[in-house]
Amino acid sequence: MTKLSVRHLLGIKNLNENDIQTILETATQFKEVINRPIKKVPSLRDITIANVFFENSTRTRLSFELAEKRLSADVVNFSASGSSVKKGETLLDTVNNILAMKVDMIVMRHSSPGAPHYLSSRIPANVVNAGDGTHEHPTQALLDAFSMREKLGDLTGKKIAIIGDITHSRVALSNIFCLQKLGAEVMVCGPSTLIPKHLGELGVKIGHNVKEALQWCDVANVLRIQLERQQIKYFPSLREYSLYFGINKQMLDDLNKKIVLMHPGPINRGVELTSDAADSKHSIILNQVENGVAVRMAVLYLLAQQ
Amino acid sequence: MTKLSVRHLLGIKNLNENDIQTILETATQFKEVINRPIKKVPSLRDITIANVFFENSTRTRLSFELAEKRLSADVVNFSASGSSVKKGETLLDTVNNILAMKVDMIVMRHSSPGAPHYLSSRIPANVVNAGDGTHEHPTQALLDAFSMREKLGDLTGKKIAIIGDITHSRVALSNIFCLQKLGAEVMVCGPSTLIPKHLGELGVKIGHNVKEALQWCDVANVLRIQLERQQIKYFPSLREYSLYFGINKQMLDDLNKKIVLMHPGPINRGVELTSDAADSKHSIILNQVENGVAVRMAVLYLLAQQ
Amino acid sequence: MTKLSVRHLLGIKNLNENDIQTILETATQFKEVINRPIKKVPSLRDITIANVFFENSTRTRLSFELAEKRLSADVVNFSASGSSVKKGETLLDTVNNILAMKVDMIVMRHSSPGAPHYLSSRIPANVVNAGDGTHEHPTQALLDAFSMREKLGDLTGKKIAIIGDITHSRVALSNIFCLQKLGAEVMVCGPSTLIPKHLGELGVKIGHNVKEALQWCDVANVLRIQLERQQIKYFPSLREYSLYFGINKQMLDDLNKKIVLMHPGPINRGVELTSDAADSKHSIILNQVENGVAVRMAVLYLLAQQ
Repeated sequence: MTKLSVRHLLGIKNLNENDIQTILETATQFKEVINRPIKKVPSLRDITIANVFFENSTRTRLSFELAEKRLSADVVNFSASGSSVKKGETLLDTVNNILAMKVDMIVMRHSSPGAPHYLSSRIPANVVNAGDGTHEHPTQALLDAFSMREKLGDLTGKKIAIIGDITHSRVALSNIFCLQKLGAEVMVCGPSTLIPKHLGELGVKIGHNVKEALQWCDVANVLRIQLERQQIKYFPSLREYSLYFGINKQMLDDLNKKIVLMHPGPINRGVELTSDAADSKHSIILNQVENGVAVRMAVLYLLAQQ
Repeated sequence: MTKLSVRHLLGIKNLNENDIQTILETATQFKEVINRPIKKVPSLRDITIANVFFENSTRTRLSFELAEKRLSADVVNFSASGSSVKKGETLLDTVNNILAMKVDMIVMRHSSPGAPHYLSSRIPANVVNAGDGTHEHPTQALLDAFSMREKLGDLTGKKIAIIGDITHSRVALSNIFCLQKLGAEVMVCGPSTLIPKHLGELGVKIGHNVKEALQWCDVANVLRIQLERQQIKYFPSLREYSLYFGINKQMLDDLNKKIVLMHPGPINRGVELTSDAADSKHSIILNQVENGVAVRMAVLYLLAQQ
Repeated sequence: MTKLSVRHLLGIKNLNENDIQTILETATQFKEVINRPIKKVPSLRDITIANVFFENSTRTRLSFELAEKRLSADVVNFSASGSSVKKGETLLDTVNNILAMKVDMIVMRHSSPGAPHYLSSRIPANVVNAGDGTHEHPTQALLDAFSMREKLGDLTGKKIAIIGDITHSRVALSNIFCLQKLGAEVMVCGPSTLIPKHLGELGVKIGHNVKEALQWCDVANVLRIQLERQQIKYFPSLREYSLYFGINKQMLDDLNKKIVLMHPGPINRGVELTSDAADSKHSIILNQVENGVAVRMAVLYLLAQQ
């Protein structure tokens, strides 16, 4: 098993193609592990990992926690609510305090883009970015790529449409970097108010018609409408969004081709996806969740070797 | 050790007498285990259990968590606050996501009656109902029955009075089903505003005089006044409730007979029970708590064999 | 290894010098353990510890949790938010319930001075006070003493200045007791509104000039301004406080002597300490945090032998 070129997983931008391949191949092995009756391996038995979540999260924190426990790591959870962060402590002081207690790895979610990068240059522990504001969410992109490969094989030349609210999503940017490094073609599609102007510079196609996007792509990765992050005034109403960009099963069936439907969750059923689409044979949404644990085991395992 | 007739513990209504006996006998063995210096057994070493609490809880969550850890299960906790539930995700999506991470059992508390039943028919994991609204709380009824049997032996023909707020209690209904299946006679006693009209159909006696109820019964299971669930207007004031339905030690001593006093907690001291009653020799309230861990170990252990 | 004279760690006031020496020597051994690649010992493998925090905490809870996990104890966490405490249960009932679940030790933080003392006389488990209001915080004082000894050797005759908000600090009182029992001289220094009148009775020097205090002492233990505990009217403004009592690196360098700078955290950078002071070579602030885990392992280990 080869090593990674990095000591931290801050973003997909910082990985080379070889790193991504190494992570995905290692994840394949861990996926076998978690489908055995005995789902645990002793790989990180002497490692302590702190999950430091300055923003709320269900699935990401749970997925990391399960990955850590299946690697036999010792796990401590820290969430910003009920913490000294409220007493005016700086981020660096908070993390240095956690590290002084001999924590080996920090899995961190923070509302500020760049927070994990800032920390990683100042502390000795390995840092894993579990989402920094609207910037990157690298393990999500890796589990998405893993899930696509499981379905389609090598992604070279494959066409992936990322549909929905691109501006407020940290999943979009990480997906673009990851898919391009794996040789796929990427389109982003959504209302123009929800697509940042500079995205064209990254070499992605930009579309505003969801039917055309579906026609074009092998995979539709549908993002959620981040109701909680938006200024209401620039945004189409939910009803309008659903009318023009919502995807239902009929639209997928009418394509008369194989298409893979993905969503990072949590789904707003009836907004970006109807229930019949989310639960259709096209959907691999729950596979993504399952693969998330395997991919995170791979990331933690590989970083611990650095 | 025989097997249960069910894959889930949704309510006592769904159990047959044999199931209840099996659980109580298995709990006897686990009670020995947790009273040894080494309180752990490796029985569920390869099982992952998620405690999914959509409503706050102290003792029930803690009791399940200790039961799980003493069975050597891997445990993850999920509470609705700080979760994707707030982001508009459906219950089924939330639970499916947790399951996709290869969780084997779900222990769930939810404010909606029937929520665990709904889920159990749609997911492959074993579901344990840790309280669904004002409906059922089966492990509480089982630990109550266990505690009564420990004190009184076989419950056939024994007289149990359930005293207090029956309408807003999930403990009452589970207790009625459980005690009747074990052959006991049940009376419910409280102000008429706090006893549902249809209870008579279940074959329980209905009383409104606490002294008569105490005279009649072998066991008084006193429920707490669920201040947080009530519409204030239909309810006697706390002072009135305490005056007409509160139980003190003198009342118990004056009976001149053996009586067992129980309460599922948390106690409102000075409302449904005075302190001298709660702490009297009649009370087995803390035994109930202790037995809760053994009974929950039995339930989890038996369901894992299904 | 000798035994302690107490079954609980309620405050430094209740310890004799021999107890303190025993804890500090045991902590030296555990500090070696947590600096090995394998940081765990099986010492408390059959012990269940509940961390019962009625007040929020980051570093103290995390430090105890890591100490417990490195001793291989089973750990359950209980916080007052989301608990039956809100449903009107008494403190004693809450803790008795936790104990009835066969918990061996309780680590407790509570806003009321004396809460752990009250409990310890009524329950069979060992109680560790993790901070009771503005009263005592004994493990903090022990880790402070440990950190000072590591730097200065035997504390007999050493001069320690405790600088800042003495009135609202639980660290100050525990430090005074601990340092005096170890033979050190103690001065408290701060604005007169933040020093309780009766402190002179404890045999400590009282000062109001931070430069004189620094000149006098071998160790400056700077406390944080407890913004969240204060009535604003009696207090100098933050700007005034910082102007008259804040410490910067220049002040330390100008002393032309060795001085040890300590702070229990979380630091208000720019208020009681400037960043250049907190991060200077004089500072052992992060050593304190590291030593906290070792000292807490020692306390838990020794109490478990009682």
